[in-house]
Amino acid sequence: MTELNRLGAKDVADLIASREAGAEEVVKACIARIEEREPDVGAFQYFDADYALEQARTLDNSPSKGVLHGVPLGIKDIIDTKDMPTGNGSGIYQGRRPISDASCVALSRGAGAIILGKTVTTEFAYFFPGKTRNPHNLSHTTGGSSMGSAAGAADHMFPIGFGSQTAASVTRPAAYCGTLGYKATTGDFDLQGVCGLAASYDTLGFLCRDLEDISLMRQALIGDRPMPPRADGAPPRVGFVRTPWWDEADAATHHALGWAAEKLAGEGAAITEPTLPSEFGELIETHKLVMAFDAARARAYEYVNHPDELSPQFTALMEEGRAVSYADYRAAQTQSVACRKQVADLMSDVDVLLAPSAPGEAPEGHAATGDPIFSRMWTLLHVPSVTLPVATGDSGLPIGVQIIGKAHGDGALISDARWIYDRLK
Amino acid sequence: MTELNRLGAKDVADLIASREAGAEEVVKACIARIEEREPDVGAFQYFDADYALEQARTLDNSPSKGVLHGVPLGIKDIIDTKDMPTGNGSGIYQGRRPISDASCVALSRGAGAIILGKTVTTEFAYFFPGKTRNPHNLSHTTGGSSMGSAAGAADHMFPIGFGSQTAASVTRPAAYCGTLGYKATTGDFDLQGVCGLAASYDTLGFLCRDLEDISLMRQALIGDRPMPPRADGAPPRVGFVRTPWWDEADAATHHALGWAAEKLAGEGAAITEPTLPSEFGELIETHKLVMAFDAARARAYEYVNHPDELSPQFTALMEEGRAVSYADYRAAQTQSVACRKQVADLMSDVDVLLAPSAPGEAPEGHAATGDPIFSRMWTLLHVPSVTLPVATGDSGLPIGVQIIGKAHGDGALISDARWIYDRLK
Repeated sequence: MTELNRLGAKDVADLIASREAGAEEVVKACIARIEEREPDVGAFQYFDADYALEQARTLDNSPSKGVLHGVPLGIKDIIDTKDMPTGNGSGIYQGRRPISDASCVALSRGAGAIILGKTVTTEFAYFFPGKTRNPHNLSHTTGGSSMGSAAGAADHMFPIGFGSQTAASVTRPAAYCGTLGYKATTGDFDLQGVCGLAASYDTLGFLCRDLEDISLMRQALIGDRPMPPRADGAPPRVGFVRTPWWDEADAATHHALGWAAEKLAGEGAAITEPTLPSEFGELIETHKLVMAFDAARARAYEYVNHPDELSPQFTALMEEGRAVSYADYRAAQTQSVACRKQVADLMSDVDVLLAPSAPGEAPEGHAATGDPIFSRMWTLLHVPSVTLPVATGDSGLPIGVQIIGKAHGDGALISDARWIYDRLK
Repeated sequence: MTELNRLGAKDVADLIASREAGAEEVVKACIARIEEREPDVGAFQYFDADYALEQARTLDNSPSKGVLHGVPLGIKDIIDTKDMPTGNGSGIYQGRRPISDASCVALSRGAGAIILGKTVTTEFAYFFPGKTRNPHNLSHTTGGSSMGSAAGAADHMFPIGFGSQTAASVTRPAAYCGTLGYKATTGDFDLQGVCGLAASYDTLGFLCRDLEDISLMRQALIGDRPMPPRADGAPPRVGFVRTPWWDEADAATHHALGWAAEKLAGEGAAITEPTLPSEFGELIETHKLVMAFDAARARAYEYVNHPDELSPQFTALMEEGRAVSYADYRAAQTQSVACRKQVADLMSDVDVLLAPSAPGEAPEGHAATGDPIFSRMWTLLHVPSVTLPVATGDSGLPIGVQIIGKAHGDGALISDARWIYDRLK
């Protein structure tokens, strides 16, 4: 039998529901893995094994609370937890004890989840890195900002880690750590109690190993029922989009994407190559401008009151945002709305898009978290995305591909991603 | 000379900048008014006169910090303040001391504002009322939820009170208390540190007595410069919209709206009567459904952990929201997007719309906050709105009219509202 810490969340929930295992056993397996690997990987900002076991025992002695009964979750440390400190990746908030749970945590606990611990994030989910190291090669970055959740899910410390994305904070660490990374359609998940960076883009996501676990979390948080596969296992129509930044990706990434498109075609999927309107090339700069303007408002308290405790990167973002005029901000938002309409039109003939998740493997070193270039546009467009780990680069590190759905078509995206992943993994 | 507590924020800022008055004098005038009236009106959830004076003296001894230097603000008690408790209108959070300021408070302080105190709100800005009484007749409601900010601004306790709106929480208390009420285009103002009710609708607003103060706050929070009046004082084109709920309004409201339209026409404004598509009548129910779904997520922590401390009204909202399916929620959101497009098309021939703010005067009694029926649709449509107090009802209480602008056309709305208010007040 597979070790319990290697199971996905749905499998764990099913085992516990059928009384083939208890939540305590599951948590013990996770703890064993964490004790073995945490000194190297550093996925956790806060972890208390005894308290995790206490939660598990309480659940084992209770009737089922819901679809997550007994499932251990890693919670990104920008998400409030009433019983664990929440530091937002900043010394300003080190040791802060929130008075209540973020809404996503409350809903998860309400459905029976165990809050295993708090996972490392960059400073306010922007670029200044935390301590986590890539489980595939400790001298490489995990990517940011959901670094602890990506590394912990990839390294079998827990089945699901909560992440969030404002630029590339789920997609990139998923690709670098070789795990699934799901960024929801913007607006689908409530963000009360989640430290915000840019309200125009902030969205929750999950780092996990089983696609069905994404559906499970959507069910727990918003009551969305999993979508069944297409009738007769019919293949999705896939639009292969190299994006305007294709030349920024390395040869291994080019190869992985080309191989994926060819393989899916061979399996019967209709592959087209839709062309993004040329002005989409500007959306990187548009995303940067809106993010800076929003962040300069969202984190005004820290900028005004704790300037000496911010990293140079974060201070630069605040100052960049303060220098953007409201007129330029509105022009960027108007352009974004038009591009969202254009991408919806472009997707009327396909079910999903296939695109790079990152320029290549995780870069060496821990001073930076890699380039968000292949995610900024999709985040701006508010569309849902799932990164699938399907290839390996020259250094033996994972390479992911991104499957992109239609805005609010997250259920269909996950169903199509399953068809695709079954053929690529 | 006008008593200092009766001046608007811009006038106060100008006086202080020209050294004709100090912030301390202004705050003393506000304190005198509060000490006189607060026992009857009950606008404040928290007020410390000494601390307000301390802030004023510090500012009087500092170079100007910005456009709000020395301006006292009332802050709705769902908005975090690091130096004053923030109770969210619920016993669950009584005495809670936030670790940081909400972004709107940090930006206001950064521009030199004095945080005068925390104003009374309903429970989580929903329907269960706080203690505030209508300054025009203490036996009547102020309307909710921004009740303390509306009463305090109307009663000259401070020039500006922060409010927020998810259904009718600025528009209705402004109309009932006879003050200006501005609800921004949804998304214009960051909401970090503001207790959320429904993310699809939550937006900040202001209760004040001078229209230029709305522009001043937009400048402080998002750097939006005030828009000059139209060339040669040209009149705006006004669309008079009775709305599908016209029959719910009383005779005095019908009369006030008819009089306003006629008066503006006499002053040279082109008045048309655009017809809302008939399906707009459904938007009350659409708004209720989305608000309930969102609120059941946003306030999940309180529902799961403190069920006995919620009012029956709030518990009913949570249960209503949990019963809404994700599919029905998405259908409601899709309908809303289509209606936002329709209202933009409808407004292509006019500058602003004129509509009722409430069914009539503030109802007698304090057990409820009145009917939100005339605001739900505009809130759902994300458009900005300014309520102008221009008439009086049969009981001698104020009646307001609502001037509605185009989404993200807040600057133009305020400019046009000034033209209108100059002719109606």
